Amino acid sequence: MLNHQVVLVSRPEGWVTPANFRFQEAAIPSPGPGQVLIQNQWLSLDPYMRGRISEAKSYARSVNIGDVMVGGAVGEVIASNAPKFSVGDTVLAASGWQLFAAMDASAVTPIRTDKVSPSAYLGVLGMPGITAWTGLIDICQPREGETVVVDAASGAVGSVVGQLAKLQGCRVVGIAGGTEKCRYVAQELGFDACIDHRSAHFASELAAALPSGIDCLFENVGGEIFERLLSHMNVSSRIALCGMVSEFNREPYANRTLRSILINRIRIQGFIVSDKLETWPSIRDNLYDLVVQEKLKFRESVTVGLENAPAAFIGLLKGENFGKQLIKLR
Amino acid sequence: MLNHQVVLVSRPEGWVTPANFRFQEAAIPSPGPGQVLIQNQWLSLDPYMRGRISEAKSYARSVNIGDVMVGGAVGEVIASNAPKFSVGDTVLAASGWQLFAAMDASAVTPIRTDKVSPSAYLGVLGMPGITAWTGLIDICQPREGETVVVDAASGAVGSVVGQLAKLQGCRVVGIAGGTEKCRYVAQELGFDACIDHRSAHFASELAAALPSGIDCLFENVGGEIFERLLSHMNVSSRIALCGMVSEFNREPYANRTLRSILINRIRIQGFIVSDKLETWPSIRDNLYDLVVQEKLKFRESVTVGLENAPAAFIGLLKGENFGKQLIKLR
Repeated sequence: MLNHQVVLVSRPEGWVTPANFRFQEAAIPSPGPGQVLIQNQWLSLDPYMRGRISEAKSYARSVNIGDVMVGGAVGEVIASNAPKFSVGDTVLAASGWQLFAAMDASAVTPIRTDKVSPSAYLGVLGMPGITAWTGLIDICQPREGETVVVDAASGAVGSVVGQLAKLQGCRVVGIAGGTEKCRYVAQELGFDACIDHRSAHFASELAAALPSGIDCLFENVGGEIFERLLSHMNVSSRIALCGMVSEFNREPYANRTLRSILINRIRIQGFIVSDKLETWPSIRDNLYDLVVQEKLKFRESVTVGLENAPAAFIGLLKGENFGKQLIKLR
Repeated sequence: MLNHQVVLVSRPEGWVTPANFRFQEAAIPSPGPGQVLIQNQWLSLDPYMRGRISEAKSYARSVNIGDVMVGGAVGEVIASNAPKFSVGDTVLAASGWQLFAAMDASAVTPIRTDKVSPSAYLGVLGMPGITAWTGLIDICQPREGETVVVDAASGAVGSVVGQLAKLQGCRVVGIAGGTEKCRYVAQELGFDACIDHRSAHFASELAAALPSGIDCLFENVGGEIFERLLSHMNVSSRIALCGMVSEFNREPYANRTLRSILINRIRIQGFIVSDKLETWPSIRDNLYDLVVQEKLKFRESVTVGLENAPAAFIGLLKGENFGKQLIKLR
């Protein structure tokens, strides 16, 4: 049996294309001292990966040409040289886009799968859910009765942001692309409203949904949407700037509403959840309890087969996924 | 004897012009119960006044057409119906652009003029100095060895920001318009460098002055300068957004460097010093001690005569002043 891997072969210019990647076979690695060998079951695809394959400065080191693509995965320990892990354990690790990985035990997280599915640890209980908690609870600090807005609202991060804000007693308005996603956000996730940014009447529909302005904005998208949202911010409002996914594949957007930051004394905090790994365990525990209590819903978009990861990743960047994008590896 | 006043007669469209104001005579008011009558000696001119004469939403209520222009002034109590004040006291109050004002005693601040000049209470010991302290010390929180940048560096706010940052042990780079202002900032105020934004080589000169990037930015100007400064910010840097004076008289500038906020996890805080009046007395005490110890220098640009206030205000908005702009009233 061989390992299967997806490696980066060129950096995208503009949109990512399948030609930026190569599928390859390799020997299954042997775990060294203190390592475990993991056979992966689920691979996570996330927007941050776009930044990791750019030449440009981003918030983490680039993936080098020829390297296996980075990414979180859930799998099963099939060999262990570490006392902490036994064969058969289900674990979470940054294994990358491959079927097998030998990882230092210190970089592997054991997960409980008796009450939640393993794949949840790549979404609501993983980096996306912890990102949502950090940006909303720790940075925005919403108070009961305030209005919270999140864009990319049906996604792995946005869906958690909005549900957490509802649990805080906030009015929550989502922004998503398309009527189907908006229906899900409003009707299934329980947001107070969801505005389709593809609507011809986006601006007026947004304004109508924000009779009291915005107190907290969880920003994932950037570009035109962020520019318009800035003009709705209230005095002493807060913005958690989590992503600008609309700006990966074009010239930087020229924003004309920055004066709102001054006039409204807005606090903006750019953040990367991996800056504060020490907070992850307690946040994950909080999210776990909410999932078990069925207070946090989540939706997954599953593509089968590692060889389809590049196409699914490109779809994610274009907003074609619906919920947390996963690759099912076996 | 009559009162002299400058009133707003129209809102500017683009640049402020003298025709937006009218000089008028009026009866000297009589102080009511609990009030004092002040004969003003010094009137302060400040960039924030531009926002107050706009129709557009700003951070304080607009001056209405026909109203006396708002502004801080230092003067002498010439009649008092308040036990706290005696005839002859030198005081600070938001008296507006006029020679005489009847003010509630609760809105009047007694000042000590034995060791510093009365006019200092409109600059280094007044709203501009307190603005500098709040944005730099409370919001940016610079640490020893960090790099602090401030634009409009020779002005009433910027000059205090830079000197306070030097006292904190920071490397300080100012930005100012013209070689004379830059010479003053670097040689007399002791900044480590000052870059002339009118220079044909502004971008390269700025980059050369920032070998370690920017940790704290005190932003007064906005527009092209802010856009460029954003691209020099370090990871975990802080921005106190105090003003965008370059943007008063034109279409909002389109900023293409917002991605830096995300990549570098920048914290931006818009602020208005009048939001926290409760902090003013202790900050003023701190600044007073530094002025008396000759650790804070300041420079004044004095225009004589209330009738010249509109022209001096227009000059201030165009950067023609050099140091704190004052009107000497008698």
